[in-house]
Amino acid sequence: MEARSRKIGSLAGVRIVDLSQFEAGPSCTEALAWLGAEVVKVENPNGGEQSRRAFARESNKDSWYFLQFNANKKSVTANIKSPEGLALVKELAKRADVFIENMAPGTIERLGLGYEELRPLNPRLIYAQVKGFGEGTPYENFLSFDPIAQAMGGIMSVSGEAGSRPIKPGPGLGDTGTGMLLAISILAALYEAKSTGKGQRIQVAMEDACKHYIRLAWAHTSGTGEACGRYGPKALGGRTAPQGVFRCKGGGPNDYAYIMCHAAMPEHWERLLDVIGRPDLKGDPRFATAAARRDNEDEVNALVESWTLRHDKYTVMKALGDAGIPCGAVRDTLEMINDPDLVRRGIMQYADHPEYGPYKMVGWPVRHDGATPKLEPAPLLGQHNEDVYASWLGLGAGDIAALRERGVI
Amino acid sequence: MEARSRKIGSLAGVRIVDLSQFEAGPSCTEALAWLGAEVVKVENPNGGEQSRRAFARESNKDSWYFLQFNANKKSVTANIKSPEGLALVKELAKRADVFIENMAPGTIERLGLGYEELRPLNPRLIYAQVKGFGEGTPYENFLSFDPIAQAMGGIMSVSGEAGSRPIKPGPGLGDTGTGMLLAISILAALYEAKSTGKGQRIQVAMEDACKHYIRLAWAHTSGTGEACGRYGPKALGGRTAPQGVFRCKGGGPNDYAYIMCHAAMPEHWERLLDVIGRPDLKGDPRFATAAARRDNEDEVNALVESWTLRHDKYTVMKALGDAGIPCGAVRDTLEMINDPDLVRRGIMQYADHPEYGPYKMVGWPVRHDGATPKLEPAPLLGQHNEDVYASWLGLGAGDIAALRERGVI
Repeated sequence: MEARSRKIGSLAGVRIVDLSQFEAGPSCTEALAWLGAEVVKVENPNGGEQSRRAFARESNKDSWYFLQFNANKKSVTANIKSPEGLALVKELAKRADVFIENMAPGTIERLGLGYEELRPLNPRLIYAQVKGFGEGTPYENFLSFDPIAQAMGGIMSVSGEAGSRPIKPGPGLGDTGTGMLLAISILAALYEAKSTGKGQRIQVAMEDACKHYIRLAWAHTSGTGEACGRYGPKALGGRTAPQGVFRCKGGGPNDYAYIMCHAAMPEHWERLLDVIGRPDLKGDPRFATAAARRDNEDEVNALVESWTLRHDKYTVMKALGDAGIPCGAVRDTLEMINDPDLVRRGIMQYADHPEYGPYKMVGWPVRHDGATPKLEPAPLLGQHNEDVYASWLGLGAGDIAALRERGVI
Repeated sequence: MEARSRKIGSLAGVRIVDLSQFEAGPSCTEALAWLGAEVVKVENPNGGEQSRRAFARESNKDSWYFLQFNANKKSVTANIKSPEGLALVKELAKRADVFIENMAPGTIERLGLGYEELRPLNPRLIYAQVKGFGEGTPYENFLSFDPIAQAMGGIMSVSGEAGSRPIKPGPGLGDTGTGMLLAISILAALYEAKSTGKGQRIQVAMEDACKHYIRLAWAHTSGTGEACGRYGPKALGGRTAPQGVFRCKGGGPNDYAYIMCHAAMPEHWERLLDVIGRPDLKGDPRFATAAARRDNEDEVNALVESWTLRHDKYTVMKALGDAGIPCGAVRDTLEMINDPDLVRRGIMQYADHPEYGPYKMVGWPVRHDGATPKLEPAPLLGQHNEDVYASWLGLGAGDIAALRERGVI
């Protein structure tokens, strides 16, 4: 079988000092690690980054959460509340291309690692920060978490059933959504610094990053002067039929197929009538145009569902897809984690973790010359002290042992 | 007032030939354009990229949708179904750093612009493609759109009310979510090519990109061996209380505040009791621990909501935020588009469009040295024919007029 994952070296030589925690920052640096950057997590020697244990199911193992967001990284320890530990981190920052943090407002400055502190030490340093709320807003000092960013950023207002309360979508837009935008800006800054040797300061607020992911809702509001609403399973605007989730055989919580007949592509509906065995309805004025189908949406949906209910979701998907009608099964995480096809394609990969043994997770899904980046497990706390303190700072085994002895690392 | 947006030149000199359409590809190249790349949309002379008109509300103007995803780009026309038009695009590709497309499976190859065709012309070219379904799956030739990718990628299975049907979240994860991952991979490849002069092929499937945004759900499944479910307004896992949307004064569809007392931070609940005027309940065994609050969630929520219903959402947010309790108002797109604070911070910007005049939209939310990238309006069809064909290919005014005459551009 063709190798579907391999080490990607596009960012080889890029050094990142990572003081970020939980998801927004770590998702950003993990993307860079997958693409070849040397990402060094700097963690407190006493327990390490909070998410190692905060979400753990077993007290003696790192959490699955931590494993998701910290693959392919290195870990060193440093007690930054001690002068020696702080000095160590500054030495790392002097030799880095990127420094990143997402602590609560004001914390990094209080620790003595603010932008004004580090900039003079390393003019080529890209200093990246995630904030919850925008700087200069009345809320800039408030605590934020992913759902709060999704509320303030407008995402929740356009997610949920029409006429019902807003829901928080499953995806972590406030966290990973932010992390991806930050990664793009950092990469652009790295590209620039490769020529100029000059760094810059990069900041993003989670509430603002969320606004970027609902551009259809902005277009709706610009065009209509109205707030965009919630449309349940339909696309924002919700103007086509059939479009949405249709129940399939099985009756489980995810036994649904998503079916959409594009308003601008009338052939989809005609094809669908053939598949569901109702070619007699071609030309029926109740359904003949996109506008008619919208007006008779309940009838349209009942017609389609009377057929989908008789087949499982993959059969529905295959029949419609083969006939040129946009359709997809609603898949859950358990069926996907057990799908050998994802492993075969390198989307889901195995790695060997010291605490868990071989485990499986979704890696970076973009292929470079046919292969996805190879997954390496998240590091144990301080796993790379010797490696990094030696190769970055030239410390010997004795120096490192002494630092450990004194509780600095 | 301090300038909060300015032209960002991090990617100055990077040339991108953009044959992409709708959202997944255009959101990617727009991010690169905001950061300084020269993105040239190549469009058919007869109407241009489909989304200019497909979603238009007025037949003589480009759609608001198009404006959202094509800011800061250039537009040239070329009839790639004519040999002369095809040759023109190949000449552009010879001089480009990046070529990108997201057409239906097989289309770009049929047009004569496949990877094998372009690679020999320009060894440093980064050739980027978006697919709907993964190559090598039984579905690789099926049509896909954003909601279908969200269904197949697992997002819908974790979005919606518990016990109800899946919904499609408002954010365009299948589209913009994919575009952002592609941008990261392209930028890494550009960084590499800056040293090596060598390009590469980059591909991503929308269904796979969606899997990247639900890492909490994967962690849940790895930890429990169960599919992750739907949790309405709560974070995936849904194990804390109070957490979710609480009705506020006003009663409108978005008169809600998001409130969460972190399970690992017991002080949140005690602070909340003070704010809502119930310090007498501190220590009450029904609510004293995270586990107790979870067991008595209905009572907890009723207690909190009896207070939030008496105040508008911003008052609730301010009172809780000031007291150190994570909280955010659920904001809709209309209130945000009218919020002068977003303009002041450079998150929302005005641009002057030839058809609409001055208009307002959310730009790239990441700040570079304190400023967001300046918004320039989406181009009119063929607006940059003279500019690009002259500066990239050295064509004179006469050559360009002749091409136009012959219907090539």
